[in-house]
Amino acid sequence: MAIIAVGHKNPDTDTIVSAIAVADLYKKAYGKDVKPVAQGAVNPESKFVLDKFGLAAPEIVTDATGQQIILVDHTDLSQSLANLDKGEIVAVVDHHKLGDVTTTNPLEMWVWPVGCSCTVIKGMYDFFKVEVPKPIAGAMLCAILSDTVMFKSPTCTDADKKAVDALAKIAGVSDYMSIGVEMFKVKSAVEGTPMKDLLNRDYKDFDMSGKKVGIGQLEVVDLSILTPYKDGLYAEMEKAKKEGGNHSVFLLLTDIMKEGSEMLCLTDDPSVVEKAFGKKIEGKSVWLDGVLSRKKQVVPPFEKAFKG
Amino acid sequence: MAIIAVGHKNPDTDTIVSAIAVADLYKKAYGKDVKPVAQGAVNPESKFVLDKFGLAAPEIVTDATGQQIILVDHTDLSQSLANLDKGEIVAVVDHHKLGDVTTTNPLEMWVWPVGCSCTVIKGMYDFFKVEVPKPIAGAMLCAILSDTVMFKSPTCTDADKKAVDALAKIAGVSDYMSIGVEMFKVKSAVEGTPMKDLLNRDYKDFDMSGKKVGIGQLEVVDLSILTPYKDGLYAEMEKAKKEGGNHSVFLLLTDIMKEGSEMLCLTDDPSVVEKAFGKKIEGKSVWLDGVLSRKKQVVPPFEKAFKG
Repeated sequence: MAIIAVGHKNPDTDTIVSAIAVADLYKKAYGKDVKPVAQGAVNPESKFVLDKFGLAAPEIVTDATGQQIILVDHTDLSQSLANLDKGEIVAVVDHHKLGDVTTTNPLEMWVWPVGCSCTVIKGMYDFFKVEVPKPIAGAMLCAILSDTVMFKSPTCTDADKKAVDALAKIAGVSDYMSIGVEMFKVKSAVEGTPMKDLLNRDYKDFDMSGKKVGIGQLEVVDLSILTPYKDGLYAEMEKAKKEGGNHSVFLLLTDIMKEGSEMLCLTDDPSVVEKAFGKKIEGKSVWLDGVLSRKKQVVPPFEKAFKG
Repeated sequence: MAIIAVGHKNPDTDTIVSAIAVADLYKKAYGKDVKPVAQGAVNPESKFVLDKFGLAAPEIVTDATGQQIILVDHTDLSQSLANLDKGEIVAVVDHHKLGDVTTTNPLEMWVWPVGCSCTVIKGMYDFFKVEVPKPIAGAMLCAILSDTVMFKSPTCTDADKKAVDALAKIAGVSDYMSIGVEMFKVKSAVEGTPMKDLLNRDYKDFDMSGKKVGIGQLEVVDLSILTPYKDGLYAEMEKAKKEGGNHSVFLLLTDIMKEGSEMLCLTDDPSVVEKAFGKKIEGKSVWLDGVLSRKKQVVPPFEKAFKG
């Protein structure tokens, strides 16, 4: 039976492309049969990337029972497959903080504090001296541009930029920034999307000191695109909070050109926002100047705020 | 302030040498000031290795408060520094199963399913194109010979053997197996050692489905060396169980020539031994043929047995 390579719930481009790339690399480096899968359908941005480079969307798998698994782009149980303890994790490739996944057996882990899991995977291709296939190189560079908001995010490192340069050469892409802009325009498109899908597009639940805290993010090239949708999104956040039994649900509306985020807030304890960011909620939201990265600029201050 | 590199409690040779080697590598690869430390004094085997290659024993540090930390050779909270959540883990280098350590920030992790953390570190030296200093190479090859019981342990992989070959060349060691035998003779020496020190020489507490399970190991070149000490060791196990509030305390008396272990057993539920190994305790112990590795042959079956 094939090993499955799988990213987090509500898959984004990095999670989808990382699963595809890791499966390719493990086949070639170890001769193992690895199948990329995903916990859900691909979002419009990922579809644009896969279509552009002629790659197929991964099959959907949501349960780990009886599977051998390579986890990509996450190590939090809440973001992973159901019944993870009934499968066997053989490897982890990630670029986030270390979450609460544990294993029974020794495993392989490649985790670097860089902007994108695909940057780690580029390093792995180099380490194993395996050539990145042209279409996968193209998709990987898009994943890095997406996760680093075209190098603007504070999560972006020199390693991410170097990886994009090298991947662009392999993919034969001369102007990757224009592909990036095209990709973010696709990502910004909200018209006709049900509010629920929009909230879930990049939404993750975190366990913060025993409290369930959901944090979603929508990145757009211009925040005004979202103005007509704020009330509808807020109503969806209320539903999600109730259904999930969450302590809090936050939604970052990120303007990648202005380089900041309006955070819609729904919480049992509004003081956590002030503790985390030194600003009070005005109405239903707070403007966080310079905040582009949930991982680096939002999750850590919230975790500290929830601790005490 | 320097970053500290630290291994697990009751440091063994791999934990001590890994801390020293990682500190050297991070200085050279990243220009960071890293200090190797240990959670306790070095054992006789490690002292033999450090003395042989002219390396100093690491300073003892037991609290993480306010420190930046590179964890080596473990990811279990129970085996780590006190107040780990009051420090910041910046990197992990390990070869065990993934434990319950979590982090608040993204980090670097190098974890491979090989016989010894020093084998991972040799791979890192290669990746970063940094030369291993001669004395550190000698100590690293001893750590690998120790952890893999001179390549006899089922945890031993081709990567471990290749690393030892390469390190022997760097260290200018022509007959590493004779150093290995010398080292295991030092390890076997028990005369004059207080029973408590003997039990603690390589002792780890594990959390198994909420139960505290201590598993120690003594490796000797001939089991008969330990015959006069069994009663004394058993009495120390009783003390450790009481003081630690353990559900179980097991001690593996491993005969590396016969390639098996007599396991002394002290447990609130003797059926876990039968569930894990299919053999009943006879008197105070059970003979486990072919069992050399706590990590690979003892911890996983116990974890399964405790689960259900």
